[in-house]
Amino acid sequence: MYTMIFFDIDGTLLTEEKELPKTTKLAIKELKEKGHQVAIATGRAPFMFKDLREELKIDTYVSFNGQYVVANGEVIYKNPLHKETLKSLVEFAEAKQHGLVFMDHEDMRASIEFDPYIEESIGTLKFAHPKHDISYCEDREIYQSLLFCKDDVEHDYIVTYQDSFTFVRWHPVSTDILPVGGSKAIGIAKMLQHFNVLPDQVYAFGDGLNDVEMLSFVGNSVAMGNAHEEAKRVSKHVTKHVAEDGILHGLHLVGLLK
Amino acid sequence: MYTMIFFDIDGTLLTEEKELPKTTKLAIKELKEKGHQVAIATGRAPFMFKDLREELKIDTYVSFNGQYVVANGEVIYKNPLHKETLKSLVEFAEAKQHGLVFMDHEDMRASIEFDPYIEESIGTLKFAHPKHDISYCEDREIYQSLLFCKDDVEHDYIVTYQDSFTFVRWHPVSTDILPVGGSKAIGIAKMLQHFNVLPDQVYAFGDGLNDVEMLSFVGNSVAMGNAHEEAKRVSKHVTKHVAEDGILHGLHLVGLLK
Repeated sequence: MYTMIFFDIDGTLLTEEKELPKTTKLAIKELKEKGHQVAIATGRAPFMFKDLREELKIDTYVSFNGQYVVANGEVIYKNPLHKETLKSLVEFAEAKQHGLVFMDHEDMRASIEFDPYIEESIGTLKFAHPKHDISYCEDREIYQSLLFCKDDVEHDYIVTYQDSFTFVRWHPVSTDILPVGGSKAIGIAKMLQHFNVLPDQVYAFGDGLNDVEMLSFVGNSVAMGNAHEEAKRVSKHVTKHVAEDGILHGLHLVGLLK
Repeated sequence: MYTMIFFDIDGTLLTEEKELPKTTKLAIKELKEKGHQVAIATGRAPFMFKDLREELKIDTYVSFNGQYVVANGEVIYKNPLHKETLKSLVEFAEAKQHGLVFMDHEDMRASIEFDPYIEESIGTLKFAHPKHDISYCEDREIYQSLLFCKDDVEHDYIVTYQDSFTFVRWHPVSTDILPVGGSKAIGIAKMLQHFNVLPDQVYAFGDGLNDVEMLSFVGNSVAMGNAHEEAKRVSKHVTKHVAEDGILHGLHLVGLLK
């Protein structure tokens, strides 16, 4: 039987120090040798995990929390932010002097020359402050935007744009902007339609709040030991901490490896 | 081939005046005679559409926006609000003198004796002000809670409880409280696992913001002519207005009826 296994990246494949445990790398190799389809499901943009894809030889993935889905190297689903509404939000943020970053599958650009909040939060992902180019959001399809402000001033954005965008805070000074209704689960659903696989034959490993839909959706869900309480609550299984061979242990737990 | 068709209630099966168009009733009868599985996917509590289920002879449904799923009369999935966190929110709302309503599959109760906001908003659903019983949320599993306040004071709740609950405003003085990550799409996924059906064989009709995940998820999506722009944007097809035989027209559009 054809089985698909989805892995989140941060906190699941990679440790807090952004390291890939040796046992995880070997386990993924073994899954592929058994004929399983191994895939990634992440909130990251495709250009932000290119090295990892190459290291693991994976070319099937859900990126941008479900907004950009690639099967065997081929794009099968795209759900960019609505261009006119994003344009309106850019002006809204300009008036408040809040910075934005626009991301497509290839790269990212900032709406302002320099913003300490951008440097601080993007820095934790080991990326430099993106170049300044406000026209980036007009020339290209943007799958995710990042807004830079503290949560006490985020409210105006939510109230104004809640019909089009979902705001997901990932850092004290930054929040992700996604199309409303988007999640990794929707991206996985597109994948199952593409490969003709039932949710029952699908496994998912994750740890974050943005994994909750995915872990609820698939037939076989495994939360990491280091996972958020909500991710553990909706999962069938809870494995060990990512830094304690949690992936290998979890694959034993669900019987995919022996 | 086994096909499942999900219908939202308000604005999809029922018009704004809460009437079921004759053509819709006949179309559903015909779908069932053809051997298709007809189901409901709604934000309502089960006790709020009992009459409609009986009128349409449907006993398979996703209720509470995915938190309570019934297949052929049998409960196959439940995802109640986390009890301890809800208890904390009850105290939080008490301190602010905001009313709450607690809903399970059978009934609902209010946290306070009388609140004009409760009467006003629950009234639009043609229900009376629920009885006062704050212990209801402790004695039973609550699948959805309603908070009564305007959106300018909702922010404190979102910031405090965003890791556990999702807040979905449905009325100027009321907002739904759901478990984080919950949506009709998750409920439908549980249904497909139960019936062993692929997303490709699934049809969904809807009109609201709470239909966006479901319409993104299923293989064959139809937005009503009266649908929210985002619901139309993610759907494969757009049919006529609910009051202009939109369901019958949509079923022709996707080829389920001739």
